[in-house]
Amino acid sequence: MITTKELAAELAGRILTDPAELVRYSTDASRAAPQGLPLAVLTARSTEDVAAGVRWAGRNNIPVSVRGAGTGLAGGAVAYAEGLVISLAEMDTILSIDPGNRLAEVQAGVITADIDAAAAEFGLMYAPDPASYRQSTIGGNIATNAGGLRCVKYGVTTDSVAGLEVVLADGEIIRTGSTTRKNVVGYDLTSLFVGSEGTLGIVTAATVRLVPRPAGKAVTFRATFPSASSAGRAVTAIMNSSVVPEVLELMDRASVEIVEKFHPTGLSTDGAAILVGQFISVSSEEDAAVAAWLCREAGATDVEQAEGDVLLEARRVSGKALDARGLRASCDVAVPIARLADMFEALEKISADEGVAIPTFAHAGDGNLHPSVVITDESAGAYAAAERILDLITDRALSLGGTLSGEHGVGSLKFGSLTKQLDPATRAAHQRIKHAFDPQGILTPGRGV
Amino acid sequence: MITTKELAAELAGRILTDPAELVRYSTDASRAAPQGLPLAVLTARSTEDVAAGVRWAGRNNIPVSVRGAGTGLAGGAVAYAEGLVISLAEMDTILSIDPGNRLAEVQAGVITADIDAAAAEFGLMYAPDPASYRQSTIGGNIATNAGGLRCVKYGVTTDSVAGLEVVLADGEIIRTGSTTRKNVVGYDLTSLFVGSEGTLGIVTAATVRLVPRPAGKAVTFRATFPSASSAGRAVTAIMNSSVVPEVLELMDRASVEIVEKFHPTGLSTDGAAILVGQFISVSSEEDAAVAAWLCREAGATDVEQAEGDVLLEARRVSGKALDARGLRASCDVAVPIARLADMFEALEKISADEGVAIPTFAHAGDGNLHPSVVITDESAGAYAAAERILDLITDRALSLGGTLSGEHGVGSLKFGSLTKQLDPATRAAHQRIKHAFDPQGILTPGRGV
Ligand SMILES: Cc1cc2nc3c(=O)[nH]c(=O)nc-3n(C[C@H](O)[C@H](O)[C@H](O)COP(=O)(O)OP(=O)(O)OC[C@H]3O[C@@H](n4cnc5c(N)ncnc54)[C@H](O)[C@@H]3O)c2cc1C
Ligand SMILES: Cc1cc2nc3c(=O)[nH]c(=O)nc-3n(C[C@H](O)[C@H](O)[C@H](O)COP(=O)(O)OP(=O)(O)OC[C@H]3O[C@@H](n4cnc5c(N)ncnc54)[C@H](O)[C@@H]3O)c2cc1C
Repeated sequence: MITTKELAAELAGRILTDPAELVRYSTDASRAAPQGLPLAVLTARSTEDVAAGVRWAGRNNIPVSVRGAGTGLAGGAVAYAEGLVISLAEMDTILSIDPGNRLAEVQAGVITADIDAAAAEFGLMYAPDPASYRQSTIGGNIATNAGGLRCVKYGVTTDSVAGLEVVLADGEIIRTGSTTRKNVVGYDLTSLFVGSEGTLGIVTAATVRLVPRPAGKAVTFRATFPSASSAGRAVTAIMNSSVVPEVLELMDRASVEIVEKFHPTGLSTDGAAILVGQFISVSSEEDAAVAAWLCREAGATDVEQAEGDVLLEARRVSGKALDARGLRASCDVAVPIARLADMFEALEKISADEGVAIPTFAHAGDGNLHPSVVITDESAGAYAAAERILDLITDRALSLGGTLSGEHGVGSLKFGSLTKQLDPATRAAHQRIKHAFDPQGILTPGRGV
Repeated sequence: MITTKELAAELAGRILTDPAELVRYSTDASRAAPQGLPLAVLTARSTEDVAAGVRWAGRNNIPVSVRGAGTGLAGGAVAYAEGLVISLAEMDTILSIDPGNRLAEVQAGVITADIDAAAAEFGLMYAPDPASYRQSTIGGNIATNAGGLRCVKYGVTTDSVAGLEVVLADGEIIRTGSTTRKNVVGYDLTSLFVGSEGTLGIVTAATVRLVPRPAGKAVTFRATFPSASSAGRAVTAIMNSSVVPEVLELMDRASVEIVEKFHPTGLSTDGAAILVGQFISVSSEEDAAVAAWLCREAGATDVEQAEGDVLLEARRVSGKALDARGLRASCDVAVPIARLADMFEALEKISADEGVAIPTFAHAGDGNLHPSVVITDESAGAYAAAERILDLITDRALSLGGTLSGEHGVGSLKFGSLTKQLDPATRAAHQRIKHAFDPQGILTPGRGV
C-alpha cells in the first residue's frame, strides 16, 4: 500500500486526501471524465515541493496529472485513478515586474489577468488574454500555448514567454530562455515546453514579455453578415489588408442567442453571424473604416460602431453561456486564413445534413473556430452522436490544411485523433522527445502527444 | 577504405572529391579552421539526396557537417577531417508564394534576399534580413536563428518560420508546423529545429511567414553621441517608448572609420558612436521626432534626418569592412535592453585596460553587439590575445544577464564556453534531445550544444 506520509514530510505545501477535495481536483472544464479518484493532491508551495512530488511519484510509479485552474477544455488536467495530482494554484506570486526590460517574472499559479493588472501599473500589458483569463493560470496558458482575443495582434502565449523554470520528471530543475531579446545559445527549450501540456515537465515559474498598453482611441465595430461564410471572407480580406486589428472575433446567430439568454447585453442579430473588430492605434478611425469597407465588400448588411466592452464581454462569456445549456461538446479547429469561408460553408453543410445546430464562435482573425454541439440528453448515444459531428468538423478542417487544435491542446480528448494530423515519422519524433524527458512515463501519460 | 561510390549511385546531386572543391566547402566566414579535409562534399538536389547522405554517413560512422552559403561566423559549417559535407546550396527553388495566407514555401538553399524579392511582387516582405542576406541561405538562417536589421520590429528568424521539412540523422523525413496561424497539436518542433545549428537534423525546406511591406514614408535619422554608453541609454529609452523603429543600429567611431575606408559613403562622425534609426509607418515623422528627442535627452550632440539607404548599406558592410582589415575575431553578445549603457561602458573599460581597439557595431535595438578585435599579425600569440579579450567581453555580458550569442550561434568557436551560460541540469536537458535525435552522434558532432 502506497502512502503519502513520506512525501508529506518533505513539503511546504499540503497533501489533500479528503474525498471531497479529491473530487474537486479531478476534473477540468471539458467533458473528459476522470477514470477514478486520485490517491492524493499535492498543492505545491514551492518548486522544491513539485520536485519532491514527481520524485515520490517516480519511486512509486504513480501517474501524475498537473493542474492550474482546471479551466482546460481538452481533459489534460483530469486526474488519473490512483494517481497524484500536482496543483500549482497556490504558487501564485508575481515575483517581479521589470519595466526597463518589459518583463515579468511570475510563479506558475498566477492568474493570467493578475499579470496584466500588475503590468498596467507600469503602462504595460500582458497581451495573451484567453476568454478564461480571469480564472486560468499562466502555467496552464503556457502548457496549452493559449490564445485569446488580443492574440490576433500580439501573437499567442509562446510569443510572450521569454523563459521558464521547469521541474522534469526525475525532479531535476532547469531554467530555459533569457532576459535578452535575442539568444541562440542552445535549443529553444522554452518553446518546446510551451504547449507541451504537462507531458515533458512541470512549469513552476515563467518570465513573460510585456508590451506597451496600446495608445490611441479604441474604435470597435460590429458587422452583420447574411452568412457565416461571408463573414469568413471579410476576415480573410481584413487579415490580408494593411490594417492590424486589436481583436477580430466572430459569433454566429446561435451563439448570440445563447449568450443573450445567459448574460443579456442587448446584443442581437438579424443576420447569420456578426463580426466584432477593434482597433487601437493612432489611426484607429481610418483602420476601422478600411475594415468596415472590406466587410461591406464581403456582403455585410450592416456595419456600425459599437461599445467595445459590451461586445467583447459577450464574446468572453460565450463558452460559459454554452456550458449553462448542458454538456458542451466543442472543438477547437483552426484553418489557414484564406480558407475561413470554406470552413464556415462546411459547418453549414454538416449542420444541415445532420440536422443538428452547431453554434460557433471564433477567434476569427486567427482562423480559430469553436463549433459546439450541446448535449442535453445525458445518454451515451447523445454523447456519441455529438462526438461524431465533431469528428466530421475536424476532418473537414484538416482537409482544408487546418489543425485539430488551435489553442486548447490535445489533452485526453483528442489523443486518439493525433494520427489524423501527424504522419508516423513526425509522431515518432515527438515520442523521442517525450521518452528522452520522461522515460518512465509518469508525467501526464497517454495524453498530449 | 570508405568510398562514396555506393552513395553517388543513389543521388540526383553530385559528389565532389576534387581537393580544390573540398577546400572550398571546408570553411565558413569565421576564424574557425577545419581540422583537415573532408572525404567528400555532397551537393544535394533533393530531400532524398540528403537522406541518402546521412544514411551513408551513419552506416560508415562518418561525421557530417551541413552547409548553406558558408557565411556563418561561429564555425558551425566547417568540415570535419574525413567527414562528409552536405551542401544545401543547390536546393534553391522557391516552391510557392501564397499571398492569401502570407506564406512562402522554399527549399533550404534559397538565398534570403531572393525570398524577400519574390514576396515583394505581392506587396509582401520576408522580414529577417541579416547583413549577409544577399549571400546567406534560408537554411543557414533557420539553423542559426539569424537576426537582422529589421528584426527589431518583426522578430528574428524563428518568428517567421511556420513549418519545416527536416531530414533526421537516421534519414527519416519529418514535417513540422502548420500553415494555420495557431496550432497546438504536438510539441513545437519547428522552434526546436530553428537555431539547432545542424545538430538535430538537416532542414531541406521551410514554410516562412511574410508580412506586408511597410507602408508610409521612410524617415531615417542619424544621431551622434559623445560616448557609446550614452547611445546605449538612448536605445534603452527608445525601446521603452511607444514608438517602434523599423531599424535601430549602432556603429562606434572605429567601425565608421573602417567602413569608410572600405566602402566610402561620406559617413563620418565627430562623436564616439552613431545611432541609425528608421521609421516606416503612418506616423514616421512623429515617431522619428520622439526618437530624436530621446536621443538628445540621452546626450546626443547632433541628430539629423539622413538618407536611409546609404546609412543602412554602411551598416550592412561593416562586417566585410572589418574582415578586409585582417582576421576578424568578433563576438556576438546580447544584453537585456536596460543594460546596454553598462555593456558599452564595460567595453570602453576593457579597451582602455588592455590597450586594444574594440570596434563595435550593434543591432542595438535588440541589445545585440558585435565587438571585434582585428588580428593583423597571424601568430598564435596574437590570436590567443584576441580570444582573451573576447572572453572578457563575453563574461561581462553574461554578468549583466546577457547571452554569449545573440544570433550567430555557438558552432565550434563557442562550444567550450557553453557551460558559462547553461547550468549542468539545463545542459543535460539539451543533451537528452541531441541524443534522442542523433544517438550515433554523426550530425555536426561536438558543436552547437
Ligand atoms: C469559459 C472558458 C473560456 C476559454 N477561453 C479560452 C481562450 O480564449 N483561449 C484559450 O486558449 N483557451 C481558452 N479556454 C481554455 C483554458 O482556459 C485554457 O486552456 C487555459 O490555458 C487553461 O489554464 P488552467 O490554469 O485552467 O489549466 P488547467 O486546465 O489546469 O490545465 C490545462 C493543461 O495544462 C497543464 N498544466 C497546467 N498547469 C501546468 C504547469 N504549471 N506545468 C505544466 N503543465 C501544466 C495541465 O496538465 C493540462 O494539460 C477557455 C476555457 C473556458 C472554461
Ligand atoms: C558580412 C556578414 C554579415 C553578417 N550579418 C549577420 C546578421 O546581421 N545577422 C546574423 O544573424 N548573422 C549574420 N552573419 C552570419 C551568417 O550570415 C548567418 O549566420 C547566416 O544565417 C548563415 O547562413 P549560411 O547559409 O551562410 O549558413 P552556413 O554558414 O553555411 O551555416 C551556418 C550554420 O547553419 C548550419 N546549417 C546551414 N544550413 C543548414 C540546413 N539546411 N540545415 C541544418 N543546418 C544548416 C550549419 O551547419 C552551420 O552550423 C553575417 C555574416 C557575414 C559574413
